[in-house]
Parts: sequence; structure tokens; C-alpha cells
Amino acid sequence: MLRSIQFLGSCSGFSLHRLKLHHSPSLISISTSSRTPLLTNSRTLLCFRQFRASSIRSQSNPDVTSSSATFRPTRTGDVQGTARKLNFCQVCGGPTKHEIPDGEERERAICTLCGKIAYENPKMVVGCLIEHDNSILLCKRKIQPSYGLWTLPAGYMEIGESATEGAIRETWEEAGAKVKIISPFAQLDIPLIGQTYIIFLAKLMTPHFSPGPESSECRLFALDDIPFESLSFSSMLVTLNLYMEDIKVGKPKFHYGIINKRPGTSPSAIHAYTLDYHLRT
Amino acid sequence: MLRSIQFLGSCSGFSLHRLKLHHSPSLISISTSSRTPLLTNSRTLLCFRQFRASSIRSQSNPDVTSSSATFRPTRTGDVQGTARKLNFCQVCGGPTKHEIPDGEERERAICTLCGKIAYENPKMVVGCLIEHDNSILLCKRKIQPSYGLWTLPAGYMEIGESATEGAIRETWEEAGAKVKIISPFAQLDIPLIGQTYIIFLAKLMTPHFSPGPESSECRLFALDDIPFESLSFSSMLVTLNLYMEDIKVGKPKFHYGIINKRPGTSPSAIHAYTLDYHLRT
Repeated sequence: MLRSIQFLGSCSGFSLHRLKLHHSPSLISISTSSRTPLLTNSRTLLCFRQFRASSIRSQSNPDVTSSSATFRPTRTGDVQGTARKLNFCQVCGGPTKHEIPDGEERERAICTLCGKIAYENPKMVVGCLIEHDNSILLCKRKIQPSYGLWTLPAGYMEIGESATEGAIRETWEEAGAKVKIISPFAQLDIPLIGQTYIIFLAKLMTPHFSPGPESSECRLFALDDIPFESLSFSSMLVTLNLYMEDIKVGKPKFHYGIINKRPGTSPSAIHAYTLDYHLRT
Repeated sequence: MLRSIQFLGSCSGFSLHRLKLHHSPSLISISTSSRTPLLTNSRTLLCFRQFRASSIRSQSNPDVTSSSATFRPTRTGDVQGTARKLNFCQVCGGPTKHEIPDGEERERAICTLCGKIAYENPKMVVGCLIEHDNSILLCKRKIQPSYGLWTLPAGYMEIGESATEGAIRETWEEAGAKVKIISPFAQLDIPLIGQTYIIFLAKLMTPHFSPGPESSECRLFALDDIPFESLSFSSMLVTLNLYMEDIKVGKPKFHYGIINKRPGTSPSAIHAYTLDYHLRT
């Protein structure tokens, strides 16, 4: 759906030493330390504008949008990784304070003028695993992150649509393909970056597809030819591994699992994870 | 997890005529019309403060948090129902403009100072359907909305946790019960209010439970005694109906579906919906 250049120290070569970049699931922000209020002087604002000149935050396939080296949510620490960057109220513009509200257990950004609490919650990424003549459809990314690597069509679910509508929309936008949803295939949580992947099995309604603005190529891969060595994200690797395992022993099931990315490794290290709490139905 | 009084014209008696209340999935806001920027004068700010004095936005069981009479998202109209209320940038405090960004198709709130785009996405509500000795555990709500009605323990998934961790946490907070997740049971999207329910089957790890701060009572109900006439939300009605149907013919499956609330009906009219796009695995 969108073009994007995102925050990948190891992929983009963008230095994280002088200016730490945190791309939480719900905001783009720049700080000089993870706890420092952001954009508080003209220098950082200038840096931010310069950075924005060449970047657009993506709503698509964003499972490497956090720096795992700098953001590891914990029960208490996660809020400092996100809510600490919420300096102003979206409704009235008042400055926020960062406290644990009465009756809660987590620190939140609370407006000092109108009292609004800025809640942050994980986001859903919805996509399709499209089966066609014993092959599956993949898109080669024409955008960062993971430029030139292969992915299922997927992107952020939007307000006002269902997960299936979102998955169908993203498939149209990224692969120019009209699909029919067959069944739910996987829910994969990635707590480190506050995202949940919802993947559906789907089939082509017509045998036509063509790359959208974010893709350089779309191709049907026979199951033995899936490019496992050049996939874009851990979520795609897990999804396709589960699918291949299912196909070998019968038909696809529904999978739930938690992708715990290994802290301290590069987001582009798509093999640096464990799949925990794996449940099948 | 939280106490709450929410926006229920028909339940609370709060007049929506003079002051329309919109409680979108991600913000509390007040406007004089659904397209009017909010809190732009002292009168509305005062009203907001007065209202806040008796209300706390809930993170738990929130599927009636939108007024279906005033907020019906459409492919283009949804943003005006939500992004239009985002008047200031959370990062730098700059005023926002409401435009369709380059390369996108939806109107967003864009900061006029730093350029940050305020994306909004649906939220996940996670909960447990707890089986124990051919009974299931329900909680009677001690908070609004749906005070005094029965619900599964459920609430908003937090940043930094998985869906299973969130469901276990909410069950502990609302029912004082330690549970083990058995399997995914349902994903139910409610596009009208930008929420997705993720419900897991679970079992008690010990036969102990007691109401938390949001519950007046927790009780095991034999399947024939489930209080279908006094359930709290459409999502709970759908979940328990699907569960009963599964049990009658065998064992629980995994269900995906879209709960389309009937526009123009009260949010408390929990039967005013259709279950669309129902898929089983």
C-alpha cells in the first residue's frame, strides 16, 4: 500500500550511534536516548525533517520496524519504550505527564490539561497465503525494509475493515490479485514490536496478478521452489514453514504462536527467533 | 483491569442530543458534530472535563464503546470518524491537517510541523472461554458498560504481550483465576468499532476463582444454564453460541467471523448484529 524506508541499522547503513531511531508499532520518533522527550530542540527537529524527506512510514509488512537492540518491552519497561514518546495530547494539544493512572498497573501518557490517557495497543498485520495449482504467490519487495526479498502480500489492518477485508485489500494493492479467502491459517504474535500477524489461506479468483507500487515482481512458486533463503521477515519464514509442514502430512491447519525475536540481534536476522506457545487446531 | 463508565445513550441516560459523544477505539473525544474538530473552545473543554470527572476509559470488554448511531466507518468515511479528532501531534505538539498523504488512499491526521502521520488501527480484545467440569466460567460486570451482565474475562491486549499472555492476565484480573490456554477458539472482527476479539479455550489450573475489581461475581455455569438472556456484549453472545453449537456436534473448532452491528441500533442491543464471513477450521 505504501512506499517506505524504515529503521534498519544493519540494512540501511543509517547510523544509530549519534541519533537513536525508535520506530515503535504506533509512531515514528527520534530521541537522543530512549527516555528523553523527543524533538525538544531545533537540531533534532531538523534531523527529523531531513530523515522524513526520504522516508514514509509504512503500513505494510512492518515486522522489522523496531530496533530489537533498543526496544525490549517488559511488563513495566514497555511503556517507557513507547508512551514516553507521547509528549502531547492528540485531542487538546496539552503536554502529557507519564504516570500510572489510578486503578491501573502500567505507566501511561496522561494529558495534563484534559486528562485524556493515550493508550497504545498492538497492531494487526493481515495478509494472504495464496494457493494456486500447487504453487503459492509471493511478492518481491520494491521498498525498504527488506528491499528485494520475498513476502506474502500483507499490511496493517485499517480502522473500519475486517481482517479478511484487509487481507484482500493488501493482496490487491501489492499483487494486483483478486482473491477469495478459504480459511484462517495463522495468528502469530510478535510482542517485541507490538504486532500480530493474521494470515489467511486464499485462492485466486482469476489467474491474473501483477506487481503493485510496493512490489517489483510477483511470482507463483512451486512448493519445492519457495525462496526460503531470501524471505523478508521472520513472520513470513514461520508462516511458510508451518504451511510446508502441514502440506507434508495432510492439509493446512490453524496455527497460533508467539515469535520471540532474539534480543540484541538485527531485525533483518529473520532466523533469530523462537516460535513459542505453538498451538494447532 | 479498569473501572469504566462509557458512552451508552440508552444505558446511561446521558443525552446525546446536545453533545454527541464518540468513543472510538483509540480515543475519547467530544464534538458537536462528527466532523467538527474537537475541544476548540472553552465550553467544549469544560464539558469534557465535567464528563471525565465521572468517567475512566476502559481497557476491558469494550465492544460497545462506539455509538453505532453516530459512527459508521466506511472505506472513506471512517477516517473522518476518527482521524478528524486527532488535532495535535503526539510527538511535537504541532497542529495537524487532515489530508490524504502521497501514495495513500485514506485521509490521515498529519502534523503540520514535523510531518508525522497519526495512523490509527483496530485493537485486539483478548479473553478466555474457561471450561471446567462441563461448565464455563463467567464474570458479572461491576462496571459500565453492561453493569450487572455476564461476560467472559477479556480486555485490551497491551503492547509487549502476546494474545495468550493478555488473555491469561485479563482472566487473573477479572476472575482471580489461573488458567492454562488449550487452543484458539475464535477471532471475531467488529469493524463498526474497530475491534477484533481473540478468544482462547482455557482450563483452570486450580479450582479457585474470585471476582476482581471489575466483577461483582464469578460463577461456573453448566452449559444448559448459561445466562444467554443477560450477556454483556454481542461478542460474548456470538462466542457462546458458537461454542454451544460445537459442543452439540463434537468438540470446539476455530472460528473466524465478522460481527456487523446493525447501524442505528443501540450498542446495548446485543442481538442487533449479523455474523458474516463465518469460517471454521
